[in-house]
Amino acid sequence: MQKPTYSVVTREQHESLVAQAYQHRGYNAEESQAAARMCSEASWHGIRTHNALKALHLDELFGSGTGGCVPDAEVKVISSRFEATETWNANRKLGQAIACDAMERCIAMADRYGVGTVAVDNAFHYLWGGGYVMDAAKRGYIAYTNCTSTLAEVVPFGGKFPTLGTNPHSWGFPTQDAVGYPVVIDWATSEIAMGKVEQYKREGKKLEQPFGVDADGNPTDPFAVKALMPFGRHKGYGLGLLNELYGAAIGGSLPTLRGRAAQADGTGEKTTSAFFFQVIHPEAISGADFSHGRTQAENITKVVQDVLGHGNESCMLPGTIEANNAKLSEKAGGLLFTEAEMGGFRELAEECGVSAETWATDALPSFSE
Amino acid sequence: MQKPTYSVVTREQHESLVAQAYQHRGYNAEESQAAARMCSEASWHGIRTHNALKALHLDELFGSGTGGCVPDAEVKVISSRFEATETWNANRKLGQAIACDAMERCIAMADRYGVGTVAVDNAFHYLWGGGYVMDAAKRGYIAYTNCTSTLAEVVPFGGKFPTLGTNPHSWGFPTQDAVGYPVVIDWATSEIAMGKVEQYKREGKKLEQPFGVDADGNPTDPFAVKALMPFGRHKGYGLGLLNELYGAAIGGSLPTLRGRAAQADGTGEKTTSAFFFQVIHPEAISGADFSHGRTQAENITKVVQDVLGHGNESCMLPGTIEANNAKLSEKAGGLLFTEAEMGGFRELAEECGVSAETWATDALPSFSE
Repeated sequence: MQKPTYSVVTREQHESLVAQAYQHRGYNAEESQAAARMCSEASWHGIRTHNALKALHLDELFGSGTGGCVPDAEVKVISSRFEATETWNANRKLGQAIACDAMERCIAMADRYGVGTVAVDNAFHYLWGGGYVMDAAKRGYIAYTNCTSTLAEVVPFGGKFPTLGTNPHSWGFPTQDAVGYPVVIDWATSEIAMGKVEQYKREGKKLEQPFGVDADGNPTDPFAVKALMPFGRHKGYGLGLLNELYGAAIGGSLPTLRGRAAQADGTGEKTTSAFFFQVIHPEAISGADFSHGRTQAENITKVVQDVLGHGNESCMLPGTIEANNAKLSEKAGGLLFTEAEMGGFRELAEECGVSAETWATDALPSFSE
Repeated sequence: MQKPTYSVVTREQHESLVAQAYQHRGYNAEESQAAARMCSEASWHGIRTHNALKALHLDELFGSGTGGCVPDAEVKVISSRFEATETWNANRKLGQAIACDAMERCIAMADRYGVGTVAVDNAFHYLWGGGYVMDAAKRGYIAYTNCTSTLAEVVPFGGKFPTLGTNPHSWGFPTQDAVGYPVVIDWATSEIAMGKVEQYKREGKKLEQPFGVDADGNPTDPFAVKALMPFGRHKGYGLGLLNELYGAAIGGSLPTLRGRAAQADGTGEKTTSAFFFQVIHPEAISGADFSHGRTQAENITKVVQDVLGHGNESCMLPGTIEANNAKLSEKAGGLLFTEAEMGGFRELAEECGVSAETWATDALPSFSE
């Protein structure tokens, strides 16, 4: 199979356009820049499902386009008697800006208390949880986040009606010394993303295993899927439910109304998401008693080598794919976009009155693996 | 199918024998009582895989019988500059006693800081993680624990050699107001337990899905299984790896040598497990902005009802089975044991010089559902 050819766009070019697109929609400079930077991070690491075009499309469907997200909103820190946690009312501020700030605050608290936690109510989609924990892990911290996804698309294990979000969990672990990049465990708790279901339908493909159910709760093929199944049966269900419980404790309301302003209208129920962030300072959990007098980082290296040894050398770590994609971006000297994506960016440039010339494919270097 | 008949043993009768068995092996009164209480809790909630007989068998194989666990060991709290976390050197003290104390300490820290965390190095098997988080959840807290399992029995996703423990995660969430019992999410990160593989072999059964691999890493049926697969493909793998990374950061050494004193002899590598405990005070993550002016508990109730509504009424929550078993124990007036289990207890009574008469089935009430 021929390797695809990409257009190479520098981070600066990319972030300039994306930030302008956000500002065009009323977001302030700071939140636009945070959003643009996280989109660059996603594309740099090959996360095509969370690139700028998707981010802006989501904003149109559920965000500033429909009131789910409020440009230039002000965050309110809820006063609390607890010293090492904070709860914020995001007032529907842009998720990427909130997430970057919350992770920063968690790090500051972890530096003092060992663990820092920020819970966020009245939140709007932060897009790519993996990006925030990866950032923190690169700075040497253990980081975690979960959130309630905008829409309920997943059935409880054995159920027939979608009452759970695809509710992702993301963990970052500083394993740079061991393998050159952080372990990033980052996935939705559904067997598959709804976007993939649509893709399978378009391509007329079937999957080996059922990943969704029909209206009666029976596992079925893509064409009859009404709702997604949790991954890993009751285990993934438990993990998806966890986000709903965190969300409920923080301030989120009924999952079946979340992100559905029209349906919730008149019910008095909130439709916003909730975020949970936590950072652990690795020194705070060190027993300082490592075999052979190793440092903590050396010990983590030995353990990772043991896991991937003994004939498991071809296995990947969670985070390997992202790290390999980052190497590719590094080699190409920028972010890699397909022709279809470039078309999307040209439309975006037109939308916000920026010259689309920069985004003409013949104006940019191309790259193929 | 006929329902089985059980002998009914009171908690007092049970804990008296089990504590004596632990003391007989050199454990002090306090740690023996903690172990006996957790065995009662497991049996009360129908967790047959973690009853007293299994606990004492494990102690024989990997614990006081072989030096993996040291009766009457003293815990040392490692001094640290962090205010809301503690790291303990368990010095191989009995896991159940450590876990009860660690959870208590987490609760005290959570009361002040919002989140309390205890990491434990040089640890020995705490048996049933679900029990500790359930206890904390019943007291109104959000609780979590993970640990590195004694033996590496699980392959990394796509691998062929077992380099990961069955590494469980356990979360407890205070949902008593919503459903009468806490949500307890508690499972190993393997597709199945090694004990089940043996059971399938004995019964000549095959499972629908492969849950293990042969020596070449190919998915296979029970009879050729050399190692277990992680549940949920790469997702469960990530979760199992997480415990190894926590363990490595705390002080654990190579997973392939853990719990294998003979193989580790002369290598200078530690063979102990590591524990991680965390408790969150629910008020610390409340945004105090619940729809219809609900309390946090009322809001959690509404969310749980929404998840299990809309045609999902027959779905269970993680923790439902345990709660139903507890109701059964309540109804029967004690712990329920099969005839085979009663035989085990009679042997145990003999082993530690206690009259076995109490454990004669005709001396006890019987119960059948």
